[in-house]
Amino acid sequence: MELEQIGKYLEEHDCYTILTHKSPDGDTLGAGFALCEYLRRMGKKANVLNGEGFPDRYSFMYMGCEPQEFEEQCVIAVDIADTNLLGSGLARYAGEGMIDLCIDHHISNKYYAKESYVDGRASAACLILYELFKLMGRPINSHIAMCLYTGIATDTGCFKYENTIPEAHIAASELIKYDFGFSVVNRKMFDIKSKGRIQAENFATDNMEFFCGDKCAVIVLTTEMMDSCGIEPAEFEGMASIPLSVEGVEIGITIRQRHEQVYKLSVRTTETLDASAFCRQFGGGGHIRAAGCEIRGTLDEVREKVMEAVGRLGL
Amino acid sequence: MELEQIGKYLEEHDCYTILTHKSPDGDTLGAGFALCEYLRRMGKKANVLNGEGFPDRYSFMYMGCEPQEFEEQCVIAVDIADTNLLGSGLARYAGEGMIDLCIDHHISNKYYAKESYVDGRASAACLILYELFKLMGRPINSHIAMCLYTGIATDTGCFKYENTIPEAHIAASELIKYDFGFSVVNRKMFDIKSKGRIQAENFATDNMEFFCGDKCAVIVLTTEMMDSCGIEPAEFEGMASIPLSVEGVEIGITIRQRHEQVYKLSVRTTETLDASAFCRQFGGGGHIRAAGCEIRGTLDEVREKVMEAVGRLGL
Repeated sequence: MELEQIGKYLEEHDCYTILTHKSPDGDTLGAGFALCEYLRRMGKKANVLNGEGFPDRYSFMYMGCEPQEFEEQCVIAVDIADTNLLGSGLARYAGEGMIDLCIDHHISNKYYAKESYVDGRASAACLILYELFKLMGRPINSHIAMCLYTGIATDTGCFKYENTIPEAHIAASELIKYDFGFSVVNRKMFDIKSKGRIQAENFATDNMEFFCGDKCAVIVLTTEMMDSCGIEPAEFEGMASIPLSVEGVEIGITIRQRHEQVYKLSVRTTETLDASAFCRQFGGGGHIRAAGCEIRGTLDEVREKVMEAVGRLGL
Repeated sequence: MELEQIGKYLEEHDCYTILTHKSPDGDTLGAGFALCEYLRRMGKKANVLNGEGFPDRYSFMYMGCEPQEFEEQCVIAVDIADTNLLGSGLARYAGEGMIDLCIDHHISNKYYAKESYVDGRASAACLILYELFKLMGRPINSHIAMCLYTGIATDTGCFKYENTIPEAHIAASELIKYDFGFSVVNRKMFDIKSKGRIQAENFATDNMEFFCGDKCAVIVLTTEMMDSCGIEPAEFEGMASIPLSVEGVEIGITIRQRHEQVYKLSVRTTETLDASAFCRQFGGGGHIRAAGCEIRGTLDEVREKVMEAVGRLGL
């Protein structure tokens, strides 16, 4: 589907359920709530769903967006590359033909929806929505601007990463005019840390391990350690960038325990390596510089599998 | 002087010395080297000077920009609000009438130069130069783009801070097209830390002190501590943002020892407080959310003065 057709589709239908991915981030939620509000302002009914609920730190997006009652007619997935990212809470939508439309920017998108608009060049799903709304021509408001900005900013590391295309800056230049306090959003998304988070970071960096002549850095976050810092799981998301922040490191790996024998890997790479390819070996995926996957086993088994894969990189 | 007149001035003169401020940052050096290269491409002679030499971490700006021999005819200060920021190495330019032209974006600018162009709304001195070069109409190259981008990015915390105006994003959208590897620059400027720096950060956060019901956080970096981490003084610049990164903190203060009884204060504030006004009490200045000053005395004396001033904020 072309962007024009998506616009037409939205005009012609009603009663939308918008799905966001598990371990929700600023882009999936920003896209979800921006689209929801845009549709409601068109006089349509719409709700945003997440299989795990919405984390506190994104409350500025969903506050005031009360659930509506209606009989669902269309299901739209935003920023979801694969149905396995719906999570158990939304598993009922994973079956074939359940999702009508997917709007996404992951090249790894599985084209599971009846109709898909995937732009792998777009810095964020929110950038696609920004273009869509401009094309559709109805005015946005400061809340929509805030949601879109948040998605673009969070997915680009505040315009820092390689995936920041010129259009992302153009969109930002327009969106920040809506006076929603972008610097407050950024402070919340990028800067502010709880004392517990700082403690956790210090613990992680003090225990960071280096391999391959310091080109690979690994941090391990066990449930026990995370519990001792008393912080929300969502707060750990940002910690995945820590190993790559060390001078000389080309691949940074964060191994975070999710359940007893389930570990979530977050992989970040410099220009020399493909994080997405690395994670595909374990059934995961993502972007070329930032990707993830889940590995089952004891910590020692997981660590061994990871280090074998690192060894194959020939660093 | 209007921007048009600055352009004319640059066309009409030759043999430029460009001055940058002490404790040089990405904006003063970006502006200096961008202007230098732009002038040289116009067939003019130009050099960039800094009273303390150029830090290694900015080598991507000055590499390949060899000093030229000429008799100095014009002196231009970039990003320098006051002659006391020239430092002892450039003290010879501090006398009246020594500086012909000043291009700056600090509202605290002292108008010490014969002619000044000060735009307090501009996110960075480099943003002013971007507009100037566009007005002058000569093409820039990827090195100039890189210098300008670096200045805008570093002074806005990579487009994160309140001082990011829409024009900063517009400039960035144009500059990143020059293919200089903006993400590599950003990684260098914002992300990469030496192991020593990480150690220093952990030390600083482990010893961070909180006052006024956790609304004020203070870190102290003594020469002894910094030496023990074995890192360059320039690497400590970024650490000034750490205290404000703690949840609930409204004023973050970093006290860094420069000499035995000389301490540099870096002050960062949220929307509720004026960092520049805080530092003016000690003869310093800067921006509303980020400012600095120097205080003499023993650490205990300095700390007492600072805490008195914090007390007056009535947090």
